[in-house]
Amino acid sequence: MPDLEALAAELEGIKLETHPSLVKQKSRDFFWYSPVLKRQLDHVTGDIVATPKSEADVSRVLATCFRHDVAVTVRGAGTGNYGQAMPLAGGLVLNLAEMTAVKSIEPGLVVTEPGAIIADIDRQTRADSGQELRMHPSTHRTASIGGFVAGGSGGIGSVRWGGLRDLGNIVRAKVMTMEAEPRTFDLVGEDIHKVSHAYGTNGVITELAMPLTAAYDWVDVIVGFEALSTASAFADMIANEDGILTKEVAVVAAPAGHDYFLRHQHFIGAQQHVVVMLVAPFALDAVASLVGRARGALLFRSDRVAESERATLPPAYELTWNHTTLRALRVDPTVTYLQVLYPYPDHLAKVAALADRFGDEVITHLEFVRFDGTVTCFGLPLVRFTSEDRLEEIVAIHEAEGCPVFNPHRYTLEEGGMKRTDEVQLDFKRGSDPKGLLNPGKMVAWDDPDFDLSQKKTWLFPGLQR
Amino acid sequence: MPDLEALAAELEGIKLETHPSLVKQKSRDFFWYSPVLKRQLDHVTGDIVATPKSEADVSRVLATCFRHDVAVTVRGAGTGNYGQAMPLAGGLVLNLAEMTAVKSIEPGLVVTEPGAIIADIDRQTRADSGQELRMHPSTHRTASIGGFVAGGSGGIGSVRWGGLRDLGNIVRAKVMTMEAEPRTFDLVGEDIHKVSHAYGTNGVITELAMPLTAAYDWVDVIVGFEALSTASAFADMIANEDGILTKEVAVVAAPAGHDYFLRHQHFIGAQQHVVVMLVAPFALDAVASLVGRARGALLFRSDRVAESERATLPPAYELTWNHTTLRALRVDPTVTYLQVLYPYPDHLAKVAALADRFGDEVITHLEFVRFDGTVTCFGLPLVRFTSEDRLEEIVAIHEAEGCPVFNPHRYTLEEGGMKRTDEVQLDFKRGSDPKGLLNPGKMVAWDDPDFDLSQKKTWLFPGLQR
Repeated sequence: MPDLEALAAELEGIKLETHPSLVKQKSRDFFWYSPVLKRQLDHVTGDIVATPKSEADVSRVLATCFRHDVAVTVRGAGTGNYGQAMPLAGGLVLNLAEMTAVKSIEPGLVVTEPGAIIADIDRQTRADSGQELRMHPSTHRTASIGGFVAGGSGGIGSVRWGGLRDLGNIVRAKVMTMEAEPRTFDLVGEDIHKVSHAYGTNGVITELAMPLTAAYDWVDVIVGFEALSTASAFADMIANEDGILTKEVAVVAAPAGHDYFLRHQHFIGAQQHVVVMLVAPFALDAVASLVGRARGALLFRSDRVAESERATLPPAYELTWNHTTLRALRVDPTVTYLQVLYPYPDHLAKVAALADRFGDEVITHLEFVRFDGTVTCFGLPLVRFTSEDRLEEIVAIHEAEGCPVFNPHRYTLEEGGMKRTDEVQLDFKRGSDPKGLLNPGKMVAWDDPDFDLSQKKTWLFPGLQR
Repeated sequence: MPDLEALAAELEGIKLETHPSLVKQKSRDFFWYSPVLKRQLDHVTGDIVATPKSEADVSRVLATCFRHDVAVTVRGAGTGNYGQAMPLAGGLVLNLAEMTAVKSIEPGLVVTEPGAIIADIDRQTRADSGQELRMHPSTHRTASIGGFVAGGSGGIGSVRWGGLRDLGNIVRAKVMTMEAEPRTFDLVGEDIHKVSHAYGTNGVITELAMPLTAAYDWVDVIVGFEALSTASAFADMIANEDGILTKEVAVVAAPAGHDYFLRHQHFIGAQQHVVVMLVAPFALDAVASLVGRARGALLFRSDRVAESERATLPPAYELTWNHTTLRALRVDPTVTYLQVLYPYPDHLAKVAALADRFGDEVITHLEFVRFDGTVTCFGLPLVRFTSEDRLEEIVAIHEAEGCPVFNPHRYTLEEGGMKRTDEVQLDFKRGSDPKGLLNPGKMVAWDDPDFDLSQKKTWLFPGLQR
């Protein structure tokens, strides 16, 4: 337990919070979508929250915590689902929510502080020059850009632009080290991989340059199909149409669309498998041609409902990615989910095989994306949870079918990701966080270099048991 | 021979030209890149040129020609290479070069008359709202948008957006019929295929709605490689990077880059195979990472040469597509070319096999494009022409290797294209051009329904022999 009083005294002038219930609130994210993480992490809390206003403040916090050997866990808006921003070892939560300045906007590029909410960035870039970010998570209205880069992978927009891991989707990251005298430097090109999706374990992102693309008045379109295979094939076809500009193409199998999309429920039949899309206005005629060819039922177009009705509906992107899970959880708290990659070119066959195998226990939910130059789909299937063992079995069956699972029931980078250590990130951490104080317990390779990631056993951070 | 005096009298008020040498000038395109077409078409000329200013003028011309049974061949800027706009049966050349109005610009969409030069459209959409057309031929500065839609297939921009044939790359086409009382109607969605790339054989495009995308100050980048296979693999890798925004990725094998790109010659080694790219400014660091990874030599970046030097260089897009051929022809008039598709996923292997097979007789030139959702390459290889028989042999060898040739040594839609009749276009022509007066001799299926396109013999339009 750090000497909070001494720490607070040294951080005078920076906004601090030590009230336990408020600190705990700022120590949580949406880890509870996973019953496993819920069991493991529900008690987790930091000891103090610091909310800097500037890079100079961040530097002071890091230097002070370095001196006192206090762990620092960086937090954006806390909208992650992997416990990314949860301070497993306690210590200080570095809340960047008030570093929200959008510093410059030019053609194709925005420079912003890390705490800016993605929707706020888009509002400013739209007003400035009709531009918007290429991609955002379904938590567009609540997530911060820094949290997205540090803990996200892609989302709405990935059907056109691929994921955050793809070169060019982050232009520059300014990073501060955790040292006696914190240094900052700019990473560009492939060097950005050193800190992107590293959960803040090896540096604090204090500024980001992100690519922009043209903003449009995206139209929400929902199309219904009798057969899941037809819905999946239609979604795949649309996503492969190079000339049709969509920002989102998802498939949600029956009965989830009808049962869980409550405010859209009256548009959707109980047995309909739905494709949810965001379509550029000028692409609607082309999409309509393909809906006709696929004999789909056009259930909903946001440009064809009255403004008064539209105001009662969530945007369609809040039916996709992990908002699908959230909507299911609101109706049925026993539901949980997986994150699956169905690799090209057999992705549709794998989807069909797994859907047949699990029946109603696992409800298909696909997110079409560009991945290494081709279109394939991720899945965030809804799982009717019975036990942790059965959940592990379901994961294992997916992987045996050749579909890697990015396990959302694990809080470490390796186990939630590719099941291997990112040597670039590990190496970077040696220089940027020599004491290992940044977000302890999230990078297995740092804490336990000999842990065998290929075995079935989950790694447990010793600090969690305090 | 039509009664030109009567025709001219009835068209009073519309700009007409009957001077033979001026008519012949407006009856030609860049067919002469092909020694075969040069032999077949060099004598071709219309009898009269009409240059309407408005849709009402077009309607008068069509109705009058219909009454007089005069053939009408529609022409934009005459920058095609397949003899698309050459009046094989004589008659009237309908020159749309003065219908250039850009009627409206909104987010993602421009509405324009068909004769507008593509660079002029881009200039206006850039000034209006920082937008530009998705794609253009290498004749950006001279080609008309209507000619591109009626006779082109794609070009610079296709690496991101696919081809004109792809749904969504033309939003709406207004078409006028060739009847006693010409009708107009709007085609949208897949109905646009009825008239796109139909060489004006089944209707006159009087207005187009085209999608726009964000305009950037594209940076010309040329990278050199010692081995052709490395250059091709690098180009393929860049084109598959979903997050790296490029507008053009081409490969030109040695010694063509050095020998034919005269104004860039001092940047390029005699033995260097070059990759020519247009890159968004904010993607340059990402591209630089990949150049380093591939051990390419960065030969040229337009943002790193002095303005005074840059002014002496053609834009890099004028080193690509058929401008590569043009530059070769200026140095060596015996060169000609093919248009080849190397189908995914074996495209690079096919490129290598054909390069090995032909050696210096056929110089590799690749254009990377998105095609049905994946990245592959077209080729416009430079062929050291010896005889028409050998040229046919070279075509046959490509096709035997599984690489379809869109034969630029044929003037008909079928033989220059997919070697089959487009039944949709043929059927449309029955209603829109009942007398068969529009661009006679270009649609084999209309003139000679029984001609067997699978045989080796070239179809000859009887009207050509007059």
